[in-house]
Amino acid sequence: MAMLDKTLRAAHEHRKVRREHYPGGEYLRLTDGFQGLPRGTAIFGETLVYGYPQVGRIVRLDQGLREQIQGSFWAEEKIDGYNVRIARIGDRVLAFTRGGFDCPFTTDRLPDLIDLSFFEAHPDLVLCAEAAGPDTPYVVGHPPHVTEDVRLFVFDIMRLGAPGFLPLSEKYALVDTHGLPAVDRFGPFTARDYGKVRDILRELNEKGREGLVFKEDRPNGRRVKYVTADSSVTDIEVNMHDMLQLPPAYFTGRILRLALFEDEVGREATAELAGRLGEAFLDGLSETLEQFRRDRRVYDTFRCRFRDPANAARLLERIRRSDRRVHVSQRRLLKEGDLYLLEFDKVYDAMTGLLNHLLKGGVVYD
Amino acid sequence: MAMLDKTLRAAHEHRKVRREHYPGGEYLRLTDGFQGLPRGTAIFGETLVYGYPQVGRIVRLDQGLREQIQGSFWAEEKIDGYNVRIARIGDRVLAFTRGGFDCPFTTDRLPDLIDLSFFEAHPDLVLCAEAAGPDTPYVVGHPPHVTEDVRLFVFDIMRLGAPGFLPLSEKYALVDTHGLPAVDRFGPFTARDYGKVRDILRELNEKGREGLVFKEDRPNGRRVKYVTADSSVTDIEVNMHDMLQLPPAYFTGRILRLALFEDEVGREATAELAGRLGEAFLDGLSETLEQFRRDRRVYDTFRCRFRDPANAARLLERIRRSDRRVHVSQRRLLKEGDLYLLEFDKVYDAMTGLLNHLLKGGVVYD
Repeated sequence: MAMLDKTLRAAHEHRKVRREHYPGGEYLRLTDGFQGLPRGTAIFGETLVYGYPQVGRIVRLDQGLREQIQGSFWAEEKIDGYNVRIARIGDRVLAFTRGGFDCPFTTDRLPDLIDLSFFEAHPDLVLCAEAAGPDTPYVVGHPPHVTEDVRLFVFDIMRLGAPGFLPLSEKYALVDTHGLPAVDRFGPFTARDYGKVRDILRELNEKGREGLVFKEDRPNGRRVKYVTADSSVTDIEVNMHDMLQLPPAYFTGRILRLALFEDEVGREATAELAGRLGEAFLDGLSETLEQFRRDRRVYDTFRCRFRDPANAARLLERIRRSDRRVHVSQRRLLKEGDLYLLEFDKVYDAMTGLLNHLLKGGVVYD
Repeated sequence: MAMLDKTLRAAHEHRKVRREHYPGGEYLRLTDGFQGLPRGTAIFGETLVYGYPQVGRIVRLDQGLREQIQGSFWAEEKIDGYNVRIARIGDRVLAFTRGGFDCPFTTDRLPDLIDLSFFEAHPDLVLCAEAAGPDTPYVVGHPPHVTEDVRLFVFDIMRLGAPGFLPLSEKYALVDTHGLPAVDRFGPFTARDYGKVRDILRELNEKGREGLVFKEDRPNGRRVKYVTADSSVTDIEVNMHDMLQLPPAYFTGRILRLALFEDEVGREATAELAGRLGEAFLDGLSETLEQFRRDRRVYDTFRCRFRDPANAARLLERIRRSDRRVHVSQRRLLKEGDLYLLEFDKVYDAMTGLLNHLLKGGVVYD
């Protein structure tokens, strides 16, 4: 641990580490990658939950697979939700967001999402999963096949205190043995199976699903992701409320992906893509304008359910603290069966202010 | 001049002023607005060419006119080109770009664009004009009614050393008396004429023209601009080569304008707008991909004509120095009738590099 102590002292000096509170006490959270520790790493004394590393994206399937992936690989479905790592810390099982925050919502609902006896058998393992569904506090939009509440899709397993992931075969064995909810897997493939992979992606695209993550079938193998055209268009449409505050490349990146997808698949096969792209922008904004006229503000409403209503308050406080671009306002918190349903709005101040200014006939200098 | 000297010394201390060379000597150029002097102000000893002030934009015609414009006003056509100010400095007549550079191209071609005897009659006046056409060194795209070379459209007259513009009546009289090439004008109107103004804009939109600038008909009156939906779509289409290096709001601003236009005019009247928007993006990028495959780089080719070929070299040097985002490469300079035709490429390094990386199957982290 002397090594870790030294790294943490240095991270502290560079202001890359923050002290966080959770119901069980305190821990340290890495706000940026630092000396080999990824952003979002959570440190509980000597217990370390490594951050989930960024996965590179290819935008050309044929050349991308040949260039990036060697030998045998698996393709796992990429789910449109938010990334969590689930680990046992002392006598609690906690879910961490990508940034390394313990998530009051996901942690609260873990017993409904996964059989926690897994952590009795394997207290040293960390499940990496996508949480997705219509009722989460973070994501606008959801996979079409998750029609209510929230579900978990495990896609990797790490070991506490160790970087990297368990080998795929070990992960698949654990997933199957414990009946863990997991992402769909396809394979094994080699680069020669490009045609098969393309067909899977075509089908996912038609079903409105997000894409695939390709993982080399060897220890510490490489991994890259590829998303469907449908997912790029949907991302644009559902995020128009927040248009002004998304990163500059949010839209141009997705449009470039669409153009490269069209280029790879052929224009005939993608005839409707331009219309859908244009509509994503204009329908998204038209709905935004309607909302503004009706309610005088631009917002998204989120719903999510809790076992313990105290966690609802913790969640709102967390979002308020970590996302300064939005104004969070609770609509209601009420008992619904065995659970408590929280409804809240994220109000987008920049978009609200701009529309208010423009629709009154205001002037912009650009 | 004591006042000006003081301001200039302060501007110099704040690094807002630069010394520039032109064939007649040296002058000072304001790189940013400073203490009431606009960006692009050019200072020749005691002779001062004020910068052309920014004109605010309204995106709602009805509320915008009512809110921003009082009393009688004129609507002048907004031309899609680049802004120049033309002034007599000593025994030369020079054309300055928005940034305050003397433009080797425009200055060279002034005798073809305008009757320079204007400056013999009025040596103290500055003509503010849009230079536009298929053959300019700055602008991709051009007004559909300027089918060859370049033309000038005067829209304002200033006085050397004085801020603000001549009253509209005085300007129109000078334009008419001297037969100056000028933008089309419509009016006078009052806010009650919203319907008439909307009809003019609808017609301009159908003709593929850029829009209108509204100017109050009183000394130092306010002015605001409004652009057509067609112009927003065209801007997107013709600038996809340079997608990565345009300001973040370039695309979102135009999409928002389209949505507000659609909202004001009604969806039925704008049914084709979504398709055109999507095509602007995807066709623009598809053409970019074709170009990259053919030539291994992403670029725009510019053509422009000179009386004196030495000015062609000066122009290229100027562009190289002022636009670091592009790599400028001359294609040819040859005599064509009485003029010299320069052809050169602006190569967009960021887009070229990204496509090269992505099409080879490279990975991005986003």
